[in-house]
Amino acid sequence: MRAAYIQEPQEWVAGFSFSTTVKVRFSETDMYGHVNNTKVFAYLEYARIEYFKALGFDFSNDSGNQNMLVVADIQCDYLNQVFFDETLTIYVKTASIGNSSMDLHYLVKNEKGDICYTARGTLVQLNYSTGKGVPFLEEQKKLLLGK
Amino acid sequence: MRAAYIQEPQEWVAGFSFSTTVKVRFSETDMYGHVNNTKVFAYLEYARIEYFKALGFDFSNDSGNQNMLVVADIQCDYLNQVFFDETLTIYVKTASIGNSSMDLHYLVKNEKGDICYTARGTLVQLNYSTGKGVPFLEEQKKLLLGK
Amino acid sequence: MRAAYIQEPQEWVAGFSFSTTVKVRFSETDMYGHVNNTKVFAYLEYARIEYFKALGFDFSNDSGNQNMLVVADIQCDYLNQVFFDETLTIYVKTASIGNSSMDLHYLVKNEKGDICYTARGTLVQLNYSTGKGVPFLEEQKKLLLGK
Amino acid sequence: MRAAYIQEPQEWVAGFSFSTTVKVRFSETDMYGHVNNTKVFAYLEYARIEYFKALGFDFSNDSGNQNMLVVADIQCDYLNQVFFDETLTIYVKTASIGNSSMDLHYLVKNEKGDICYTARGTLVQLNYSTGKGVPFLEEQKKLLLGK
Repeated sequence: MRAAYIQEPQEWVAGFSFSTTVKVRFSETDMYGHVNNTKVFAYLEYARIEYFKALGFDFSNDSGNQNMLVVADIQCDYLNQVFFDETLTIYVKTASIGNSSMDLHYLVKNEKGDICYTARGTLVQLNYSTGKGVPFLEEQKKLLLGK
Repeated sequence: MRAAYIQEPQEWVAGFSFSTTVKVRFSETDMYGHVNNTKVFAYLEYARIEYFKALGFDFSNDSGNQNMLVVADIQCDYLNQVFFDETLTIYVKTASIGNSSMDLHYLVKNEKGDICYTARGTLVQLNYSTGKGVPFLEEQKKLLLGK
Repeated sequence: MRAAYIQEPQEWVAGFSFSTTVKVRFSETDMYGHVNNTKVFAYLEYARIEYFKALGFDFSNDSGNQNMLVVADIQCDYLNQVFFDETLTIYVKTASIGNSSMDLHYLVKNEKGDICYTARGTLVQLNYSTGKGVPFLEEQKKLLLGK
Repeated sequence: MRAAYIQEPQEWVAGFSFSTTVKVRFSETDMYGHVNNTKVFAYLEYARIEYFKALGFDFSNDSGNQNMLVVADIQCDYLNQVFFDETLTIYVKTASIGNSSMDLHYLVKNEKGDICYTARGTLVQLNYSTGKGVPFLEEQKKLLLGK
């Protein structure tokens, strides 16, 4: 775990509590025989939305709110290859939170417990119509940092 | 070309005039070493939109119209394997047109001229808000059948 | 359920026993706000592999066998729109089986029980090295038709 | 261009010479109406392979060599939204090169010349069978750094 966003590896790993799983589909492999590197970001997107749902956030179109969370940047480190039909456990946590942005960290393990990917990325809350940043509510910040 | 939607193969092939190309991406292969069967439909979607653009139809969000063309059904026959980095030529034609639906046919060749895929599918024109069918204009029908 | 591969709708629906589920990912939607039509085929591929696994077939790379099941043709009918975060139940059955090919049928329902997609497709068993058809074993045929 | 991997923005931009283009497909948008963030990595993969091909490297399966270039890490910064049907120009350069790894940088512009994405990532050359790192040849290093 060489990534610059990980200071104390043990502490960093211990800081995750939420997790969800994905099973690797055949269509997500490539001709090298493993999961194609570009597919990982769909797993991370899926996991962070599950994370937000677990916290009570609603990002569906039906929510009536005008806000959307968009990716400002994202990065992933590939530590172990992942193969067809493996079940991955994806851990998500909020590493820090600003006015209208947050930094999420990710840890992805296979069934043997090997760390396959670590990742991080910044999300920004925008108003769908105006494109302007929308501050998080205090209760949202508490939820994100307390979990 | 065994597919039931092809009556006279030579005539069927000769009936295409529009074509566009796609180059197969590495991320579209799978662990069998060829293009994953599920990726073909993104090529077909790309090609039919290019076809409509060539005919002067506009389906972008900026068009201000309330209509969308949705897929009612689609089918593809896989005749020859396709591999990474090949350039495919995708031919598209309107096989028939109804009140608010049309039947498109597709022919996909590799650089050697081998037929790799044949396909067909029905599109329906719907109003985005109501979900009801929207009849094509007479001039649109002429465009689609004349090309 | 207008598709030509469905003779008696009630009987056809009643003929399924295996099913598995997928949850629709955000990255599988498109700018029309629903699941993009091209993504469905990855769901079907996932479901048929789960179906084969449930029957005791092994298609992983680790199996040491030289056979692969490739898609000869596939078709899908879109009956109801599917949206982000819905959980789909995908039913799979073997409709018929030949020497080295089989015809699978698919039925996809949302959580309300609405039929969203019906589909069918032919798979062919090939030898990976020679590309020739490989007959199914009698016990495999029994498994496929008995389930 | 806030990313830490960009020291002098003007100099950084001026350092690119290779570029290729991709046209955004409908199936790459999401329900927010823009290109889904996870799709960008397929564009970057496509562009870096075109870059290697332009330099005379061969990564096809037909090459007979036992080496593969795998992604060790990758990161992307999203500066401007990208929409359906836009043509993106993707610039690629080798920022640095080690014994068996290299650091590639990417710059992605839309047709108006706006910078939409900046990105970087490390690739490692591995032997397909052993999984061990394979040093680049001196002539390869020269090619990569000279371009």
